[in-house]
Amino acid sequence: MLNLDFHPSGRHFLQIPGPSPVPDRILRAMSLPTIDHRGPEFGALGRELLDKVRQVFKTQGPVVIYPASGTGAWEAALINTLSPGDSVLMYETGHFATLWQKMARRLGLEPEFIGLPGDEGWRHGVQAEMIEARLREDSEQRIKAVCVVHNETSTGVTSDIAAVRRAIDATGHPALLMVDTISGLASADYRHDEWGVDVTISGSQKGLMLPPGISFNALSDKAIDASRKAELPKSFWAWDEILEANRNGYWPYTPNTNLLYGLDESLNMLLTEGLDNVFARHQRWAAGVREAVKAWGLEIQCQDPAVYSPVLTGVVMPEGVDADTVRQLIYRRFDLSLGMGLGKAKGRMFRIGHLGDCNDLTLMATLSGCEMGLTMSGVPLASSGVEAAMRYFSEHAPAHASDA
Amino acid sequence: MLNLDFHPSGRHFLQIPGPSPVPDRILRAMSLPTIDHRGPEFGALGRELLDKVRQVFKTQGPVVIYPASGTGAWEAALINTLSPGDSVLMYETGHFATLWQKMARRLGLEPEFIGLPGDEGWRHGVQAEMIEARLREDSEQRIKAVCVVHNETSTGVTSDIAAVRRAIDATGHPALLMVDTISGLASADYRHDEWGVDVTISGSQKGLMLPPGISFNALSDKAIDASRKAELPKSFWAWDEILEANRNGYWPYTPNTNLLYGLDESLNMLLTEGLDNVFARHQRWAAGVREAVKAWGLEIQCQDPAVYSPVLTGVVMPEGVDADTVRQLIYRRFDLSLGMGLGKAKGRMFRIGHLGDCNDLTLMATLSGCEMGLTMSGVPLASSGVEAAMRYFSEHAPAHASDA
Amino acid sequence: MLNLDFHPSGRHFLQIPGPSPVPDRILRAMSLPTIDHRGPEFGALGRELLDKVRQVFKTQGPVVIYPASGTGAWEAALINTLSPGDSVLMYETGHFATLWQKMARRLGLEPEFIGLPGDEGWRHGVQAEMIEARLREDSEQRIKAVCVVHNETSTGVTSDIAAVRRAIDATGHPALLMVDTISGLASADYRHDEWGVDVTISGSQKGLMLPPGISFNALSDKAIDASRKAELPKSFWAWDEILEANRNGYWPYTPNTNLLYGLDESLNMLLTEGLDNVFARHQRWAAGVREAVKAWGLEIQCQDPAVYSPVLTGVVMPEGVDADTVRQLIYRRFDLSLGMGLGKAKGRMFRIGHLGDCNDLTLMATLSGCEMGLTMSGVPLASSGVEAAMRYFSEHAPAHASDA
Amino acid sequence: MLNLDFHPSGRHFLQIPGPSPVPDRILRAMSLPTIDHRGPEFGALGRELLDKVRQVFKTQGPVVIYPASGTGAWEAALINTLSPGDSVLMYETGHFATLWQKMARRLGLEPEFIGLPGDEGWRHGVQAEMIEARLREDSEQRIKAVCVVHNETSTGVTSDIAAVRRAIDATGHPALLMVDTISGLASADYRHDEWGVDVTISGSQKGLMLPPGISFNALSDKAIDASRKAELPKSFWAWDEILEANRNGYWPYTPNTNLLYGLDESLNMLLTEGLDNVFARHQRWAAGVREAVKAWGLEIQCQDPAVYSPVLTGVVMPEGVDADTVRQLIYRRFDLSLGMGLGKAKGRMFRIGHLGDCNDLTLMATLSGCEMGLTMSGVPLASSGVEAAMRYFSEHAPAHASDA
Repeated sequence: MLNLDFHPSGRHFLQIPGPSPVPDRILRAMSLPTIDHRGPEFGALGRELLDKVRQVFKTQGPVVIYPASGTGAWEAALINTLSPGDSVLMYETGHFATLWQKMARRLGLEPEFIGLPGDEGWRHGVQAEMIEARLREDSEQRIKAVCVVHNETSTGVTSDIAAVRRAIDATGHPALLMVDTISGLASADYRHDEWGVDVTISGSQKGLMLPPGISFNALSDKAIDASRKAELPKSFWAWDEILEANRNGYWPYTPNTNLLYGLDESLNMLLTEGLDNVFARHQRWAAGVREAVKAWGLEIQCQDPAVYSPVLTGVVMPEGVDADTVRQLIYRRFDLSLGMGLGKAKGRMFRIGHLGDCNDLTLMATLSGCEMGLTMSGVPLASSGVEAAMRYFSEHAPAHASDA
Repeated sequence: MLNLDFHPSGRHFLQIPGPSPVPDRILRAMSLPTIDHRGPEFGALGRELLDKVRQVFKTQGPVVIYPASGTGAWEAALINTLSPGDSVLMYETGHFATLWQKMARRLGLEPEFIGLPGDEGWRHGVQAEMIEARLREDSEQRIKAVCVVHNETSTGVTSDIAAVRRAIDATGHPALLMVDTISGLASADYRHDEWGVDVTISGSQKGLMLPPGISFNALSDKAIDASRKAELPKSFWAWDEILEANRNGYWPYTPNTNLLYGLDESLNMLLTEGLDNVFARHQRWAAGVREAVKAWGLEIQCQDPAVYSPVLTGVVMPEGVDADTVRQLIYRRFDLSLGMGLGKAKGRMFRIGHLGDCNDLTLMATLSGCEMGLTMSGVPLASSGVEAAMRYFSEHAPAHASDA
Repeated sequence: MLNLDFHPSGRHFLQIPGPSPVPDRILRAMSLPTIDHRGPEFGALGRELLDKVRQVFKTQGPVVIYPASGTGAWEAALINTLSPGDSVLMYETGHFATLWQKMARRLGLEPEFIGLPGDEGWRHGVQAEMIEARLREDSEQRIKAVCVVHNETSTGVTSDIAAVRRAIDATGHPALLMVDTISGLASADYRHDEWGVDVTISGSQKGLMLPPGISFNALSDKAIDASRKAELPKSFWAWDEILEANRNGYWPYTPNTNLLYGLDESLNMLLTEGLDNVFARHQRWAAGVREAVKAWGLEIQCQDPAVYSPVLTGVVMPEGVDADTVRQLIYRRFDLSLGMGLGKAKGRMFRIGHLGDCNDLTLMATLSGCEMGLTMSGVPLASSGVEAAMRYFSEHAPAHASDA
Repeated sequence: MLNLDFHPSGRHFLQIPGPSPVPDRILRAMSLPTIDHRGPEFGALGRELLDKVRQVFKTQGPVVIYPASGTGAWEAALINTLSPGDSVLMYETGHFATLWQKMARRLGLEPEFIGLPGDEGWRHGVQAEMIEARLREDSEQRIKAVCVVHNETSTGVTSDIAAVRRAIDATGHPALLMVDTISGLASADYRHDEWGVDVTISGSQKGLMLPPGISFNALSDKAIDASRKAELPKSFWAWDEILEANRNGYWPYTPNTNLLYGLDESLNMLLTEGLDNVFARHQRWAAGVREAVKAWGLEIQCQDPAVYSPVLTGVVMPEGVDADTVRQLIYRRFDLSLGMGLGKAKGRMFRIGHLGDCNDLTLMATLSGCEMGLTMSGVPLASSGVEAAMRYFSEHAPAHASDA
């Protein structure tokens, strides 16, 4: 029998920015018996799922579902639309943007990686005017795609995708727009069609509240056209056979049935609550957490309030404090997992996730654990963040409470 | 499909003093397929269970397990040992002691209900000298049993059972000693044999962390002897046939198999951690919660620090505040259930459970919810109880953390 | 971790006449987190449950739900309505009727136990004319209740309850009619109001497809009146306080919450399918199983085709064959549990349950296991029962298939 | 709430050759809360898993685990080891070998597809001498890999991998040997090291009894060397970063945590039972099923008894019978899923899976469903296959029964 926790009592607080805590309803749905993926019930389930998932991406177009974790969907987006040696304009918002750019290079593309200098890129969203400027220079239209991250999980900074679209449009450049919203979808407002995105990449283990193992590509017609000419070799990720089989609710190869049960339950939960209520809920949580960080006198990694992430908050440690030591103390003593600093930010910050199966008191527990752990680690705090958060949550009622 | 919660996201905080939050391990064990209760696997399970459960009661004698909730085990204790019209000396510690006394009357016994005057009885433990005095008066030995509650769930006050035993022994009176530790077992120190208890009554839904539905009678030889002569009519509750069938690990009628799976898992968890560690864990939690209540400037229902309950804490509202209104606000706004005031204490207090599947951060969430709800209800608080509890939990490491 | 089965692979076939196989839907419902039994969601659940459960008993009157297994509901029926020394007319249909009669005696009643002579009583249903004759003799109306078993689990024989009602009415005798349909409810047609039953006793672990742990008393007005005057001591089982608390969907003491979740799911399943479809399903299964037994050339315990049980079939072994040896071989070799012969029938028969989460192929597996086990035990079989059952199931479509 | 089945009662019989029925133990393990995939418990789990999984492949070398379904592992094997335009010798054993060959072509390789003429290739295993002959012709060593399927899921035919190894060795040709045992692993004997396989491909949803979503590459040193020079673009599937991260029990990107819990439970079950016992169990089941098919007078798809699959049996319909019509009748009437004929065999056969959570009686239910469905479809049967299978299972005790 698995023994996953050395703490003798109580539930673990999983407050990393994904995988997020999975609601019991979803875990229960996933434990239904596996069925024949070529039988009639499966087809009916598939058709219903493919219809509902489009609502979450806010698209009328197709959404491809992969039986693979999110990194695979990055690869799928690049491989379906591009040819060896193609130039790709990628924007550095943080660790995940950096990894995606490395992937592009490994796949034989020519990524150009732009962004603000020094640490600034990791503390602000995409600067659309930099993309516009670069595209204007590209008079030969060698750049085939612009790739940006909507919610940078390593920093807690979002980006204004509509602005990127306007920037591209302003230049008349034909590059595809590809957006990673792996950690943004279903927590932060996102609009595939309205924002004119060509390929949206997402995954299951964040706002959809599922375990990892499913990932997505939402497609524009332009992206589908591009996929017909693109020459990177593709088979498992190829959209064409999947779109063909999806017409009847099936997949060309074995889908991961039990995670699809979970996806169905997740979509039911989200669409019943209403996406706007879901987004408001995350905005409110994020605001409460930021009140705490400010009260502590610590810096928030994101320096532009317009693009604070509703999904996670990056908390910067004062000079000389190793964030990982603090995190480990908190984990061992209080059974609370926080996100580590990644890449350039290693040891300098920790990340508080406020997504998944969560509520005000879950966050109060989380902030209490942080406050105790910081104090025990000798980090000087200006005032009690826990009190500040209590004040915020007391004064700002959630939607369901005001309805009641 | 059941919809048990109007809150759209997150886990409910069930911080009533039982039923306590059930660990996932136990819920999973309970979902194993039901087996034949007359087959060989069942017999093996039964024998193992009956052996392990004795360790939790700290007895070498038999423990009878009923497929019925805790109130049934009260009835079983009285019905097996007493005859119509028998006098029983019962001590008023709170609402549950009062209910047990009413039951005795309904069953045709003659309970004599003693205790401290006014509200005092509900704020202190059993006064052993009052029992001693009463037994000394009973020169005809008409009193057949002394009945006390070990952990009074309605008040958060425990009683010194060893002192009651000494009081009885000092008089040489032959009355049986019957103790209800429904909410104390497996959270507070309890010693059936060492304390010379004749019948210990307990239930599944508190320290054993199971759903309700199972209850217990632990028996002394003297109690078994008494049951042979007792004349209250009995069949379902009768010990004799159960003890006979238990020899081979079976029951004379259908046991509740799936709850027994849960009991097996619970006993494994408790005995692996070690009962002393379990008790220390509850004492530490209780101390942290009391720090918060004191910081708020509110009164704790229990007025004798020597008998503070490690299982729950009763928080008395200031004059003019309706505790149930506060509780309901906290429930609706923060998805946190607190125990209501019962009987004489209705509307005057709420009760915080600190038992079951719980940890420091669960309690911090709970105390945050209380503090926000009290403030929002206009209850003046002297200082932040949340801060006081954080200080306590920071300064007092749990056993597992110091081992680590 | 529990290890409940020495067989290395595959699902156990639990074909005893209860506890019956529990559908996964119900096990999943039972694993929802335990909630506060005094909170608002619980009250709503309770009211809905109490309403739906009446539909299954076919009564407009109240149904009392006990957090105790079925034997407790026998005791409750007697204790609520009768006084010490009361005469009760009980009819011997088999082992469970015998146990109920023993219980009546233990509780201080005066049961009179009538029935057909020798083994005949265990092979036929209640002979209503014998009850009529006995009541006519009772000119002083000393008999306070007539107690019969609707579906005798030890034999696979049902009884005609409407006929018993007519027999009582024909005499004008005021005795209460109390009926045990622990194993009949929700599998065999049952009508509390139409048949004029005063107290119907049932349990959770048979047709309701739940684990054991819940039991029922359905009440007529006459029974409730009787309970006001009855003098057997009662408290846990007392209807009055339960009926009072039930008005708001609560119970006077802790109910077994998680089994109530399962009950809710069970009632949803049964009422959605429709009780008539449920009964037809069991009748069809029973007919298929009987075809097999007849083809084997073995005797069915029930000798009156008008009262064959739709719930189970008793298979009588030829002289000289020990049924338990056959059962054990089948269990060890084929992972199939069959019901043992009980009481007078010990070693002479085994019982095949055809209830709970079951379908045609489950029964084909069961009959194959029986046929292999009988052959391996050297029992001479006239022909293949498996083939006979296949013929029956092929020729008789289930309701859902004809709809499709 | 998902409604996956129009049948009102009982468990579905999922007897397709994968996804196979998942044991409850595994479904329960998968429902544990998702943990931080960068935390210390995860690393410990990862290291233990990677160690145990090697035992199932019978290799000392590394096994790469992908968070993707089996088709992905085919792609991974090709992409890691080969360069654009490379020749690959692939052998046609059935539908899955054909699909793998199509994939190779899509990925820009030059597959050469050999096999027996006409339908013969789908009814026999790999003819090692054909491979040997072809390699001898390849004096320029243009062929970089030989790809064969160990257990062809579309036909129920296995192949002698050791013979293929000997054939390659006899020629001294340096081509890699890549083997798909997606449906063979953990059901049929398989030996990565002893048979000198360079890349073994497998998946979770067959003998490992998990839902789909995990797949595997077991690697030889030679394969790892090849991967350093291979030029097909790769990132998600790239072994190098995975092997590097695996040293500490982690993955370079998010693994599918909950399926890994299930894998851990699966490995515990298989290794506790012992792989030889597991293989014997499947051989016995397959033999019993073949007895039934022979008794019916129907043809088995596999024409070489030396390579009958222990995992599934393909049953060929007589001329003029549409296998899919028969399958659908059986599904609707008896709640039993059988595998359809794929590719060339569409409509001409159905496939009975005998793997996953299964036992003798599950197979008797399956064969009963087939026999009834065939008869109802008007297919003339020579004799009762059900009786033949009962005879076989009666006369051949499983390993655990003889131990008992």
